[in-house]
Amino acid sequence: MADEQKTRISVEIFGQTYKMVGTESSTHMRLVASMVDDKMREISSRNPNLDIPKIAVLTAINSVHDYVKLQEKVQLMEEELNKLKG
Amino acid sequence: MADEQKTRISVEIFGQTYKMVGTESSTHMRLVASMVDDKMREISSRNPNLDIPKIAVLTAINSVHDYVKLQEKVQLMEEELNKLKG
Repeated sequence: MADEQKTRISVEIFGQTYKMVGTESSTHMRLVASMVDDKMREISSRNPNLDIPKIAVLTAINSVHDYVKLQEKVQLMEEELNKLKG
Repeated sequence: MADEQKTRISVEIFGQTYKMVGTESSTHMRLVASMVDDKMREISSRNPNLDIPKIAVLTAINSVHDYVKLQEKVQLMEEELNKLKG
């Protein structure tokens, strides 16, 4: 993909500015950034003594957990679809 | 859920030890931790100048992006399932 087709935006996550570059729409990228920001604020408010690296790693753990659970759901749905399609 | 039914493990992510507590199996929790560790190492090797908080936030962004894309797939599959079921 040509470089000029990439989306470049600045987002604020947990008080820090990040430059994001990607092939997705800016809407998708802003949604992702705001979900990460929300998760970090949630984890931080539940554990006020954690430093930023720990909050960020816990946010990553949390997100990968959600991903793995959703992947399990996809697998079940794929099996169901295959059965229905015969 | 009673406290004694919770899984408590120590995992190493990017050279740091984290205590994880959850209601999932230790296998699931170790898988999640190792996926986060892999992602952090991958991002760090592509951007050797980044510090740990930035690597962790980028890992979280990466994971949430994967989650949102998978969620879009789930939505399409749900529509297909509903059609097939009439």
